[in-house]
Amino acid sequence: MKAFNKLAIIGLGHIGSSIAHAARRGDLAGAIAGYDKSEDVRKRARAIGFATVVYDNVAEAVGGADLVILCTPVGAYKAVAAEVSPHLAQGAILSDVGSVKVAAIRDIAPSVPPGVVFVPAHPLAGTEYSGPESGFASLFDKRWAILTPSDGTDPQSVARMMAFWQGLGASVDVMNARHHDLVLAMTSHLPHLIAYNIVGTARDLEDVRQGEVIKYSASGFRDFTRIAASDPTMWRDIFLNNKDAVLEVLGRFNEDLAVLQRAVRNGDGQMLFDFFTRNRAIRKAIIEQGQDTAEPNFGRNKKP
Amino acid sequence: MKAFNKLAIIGLGHIGSSIAHAARRGDLAGAIAGYDKSEDVRKRARAIGFATVVYDNVAEAVGGADLVILCTPVGAYKAVAAEVSPHLAQGAILSDVGSVKVAAIRDIAPSVPPGVVFVPAHPLAGTEYSGPESGFASLFDKRWAILTPSDGTDPQSVARMMAFWQGLGASVDVMNARHHDLVLAMTSHLPHLIAYNIVGTARDLEDVRQGEVIKYSASGFRDFTRIAASDPTMWRDIFLNNKDAVLEVLGRFNEDLAVLQRAVRNGDGQMLFDFFTRNRAIRKAIIEQGQDTAEPNFGRNKKP
Repeated sequence: MKAFNKLAIIGLGHIGSSIAHAARRGDLAGAIAGYDKSEDVRKRARAIGFATVVYDNVAEAVGGADLVILCTPVGAYKAVAAEVSPHLAQGAILSDVGSVKVAAIRDIAPSVPPGVVFVPAHPLAGTEYSGPESGFASLFDKRWAILTPSDGTDPQSVARMMAFWQGLGASVDVMNARHHDLVLAMTSHLPHLIAYNIVGTARDLEDVRQGEVIKYSASGFRDFTRIAASDPTMWRDIFLNNKDAVLEVLGRFNEDLAVLQRAVRNGDGQMLFDFFTRNRAIRKAIIEQGQDTAEPNFGRNKKP
Repeated sequence: MKAFNKLAIIGLGHIGSSIAHAARRGDLAGAIAGYDKSEDVRKRARAIGFATVVYDNVAEAVGGADLVILCTPVGAYKAVAAEVSPHLAQGAILSDVGSVKVAAIRDIAPSVPPGVVFVPAHPLAGTEYSGPESGFASLFDKRWAILTPSDGTDPQSVARMMAFWQGLGASVDVMNARHHDLVLAMTSHLPHLIAYNIVGTARDLEDVRQGEVIKYSASGFRDFTRIAASDPTMWRDIFLNNKDAVLEVLGRFNEDLAVLQRAVRNGDGQMLFDFFTRNRAIRKAIIEQGQDTAEPNFGRNKKP
């Protein structure tokens, strides 16, 4: 038996298209309905064919679906939820994939009609690419998907969403929305902000030409440019909607950097050595838990 | 004809061992002599066999060599240069691989005897691993090696070193030592400092457990942990020996981050969107110039 009869995906970008690919691979849905507000994206999605049907309006895409997943940027949630709401079938589950969860609940929950269960979700997966062509079926394999239901959320619906994400290849955790936003501020939002910032610094430096920065980027800088190539709309919306947690971890980062800056200025070799040694260990744990490759340079230059 | 009759490599870690492997691959030297001050490293280097002979003392390793390359941490250069100096053959070239060049010249040049030419060099290559087992022949392929000779340096010796590094697989640039240190402060030293710092912030945050940071690291954080896993001694020495340039680019980074922090606090979506959009472009140039892979996630999760 399929997990759902009709899966509707609203927003056919990187995550939406990957869910469709992975749901096909796992045979999780009787039909996959797609919708995107962009006519161009709908056309491209039809050409790729990851959905059973790509509809030209939300009503048809959502109608009769027992699972509807919002895959638009977080900043569009309020409007999209209001648009989707009248067409939701009784007994349907409404979910999302947003990188911030307190704001997602704030913007979606008021539009959830009686008889529909809202199960907020966030798959910790993605690449630096965007658009319907960038999705693929294995994106969620061995990654985490975090569900952030409220205390009163129907447990059976939560269990169905856990099974669905496991069917897409992910491991599933359940977490409080506020804690999710703080954890992700540290593991995802701050790293992206820092990466964007250092790319900006490199671009604006007068004494070093941009050509030199690009040419010599393999000495470290290039690693930051990957996540700084991520979708600007998505990241604008994340920082607008997780402000407090981001400012909190950024404050800590700045404090720590001031201490490190002082050690460089004072030529405190022992402090630098100890600091570098301590922070080296965390990568080993990340590799051991299967969250990154042990290959040198992420496997970019393979040992023969 | 081989480029050199006898190549002596002093310091048999990641770069020293990779030079030996690549010189063998390119058939660049009649013999490769190795030396490391650590008996354990000498033993391991012998077991791997990348050198023709690994000697137990500097005098034998350096004696009769027409190319001697210092591959120790930069902080050891002054002592190592003094130790090597009495054994250098007339007509030999002395070189190094240090990540900072003004300090390398300051510490090595006074020990260079008449009849020996010093050609400072820096290959922009490496992985997060260290030690003699971590070296491999293709490390320098398609990477840049920068030579920073003084105005008076014998041009023929510079030309021989250019050909040598090309033989190892690299492209070669010649640059002023002071400019090198500023460029590398931006492309390499600042990124490493920031990476070490964000790992430290993640480790010390009270409200997010270290287990959570590791578990959810694939959402961005893991990218930083790779370069923060680099050798602590090497990086201590870099920050002690390129203080002014590092503090200069770090000052710019801090200024830029303050502006970005203010935009997050004020909810300035337009500024954030424009900033992210501008900084996205640089990655395209890096990929086009062959300095990084275009594969999503550095190729860690391949599209099937």
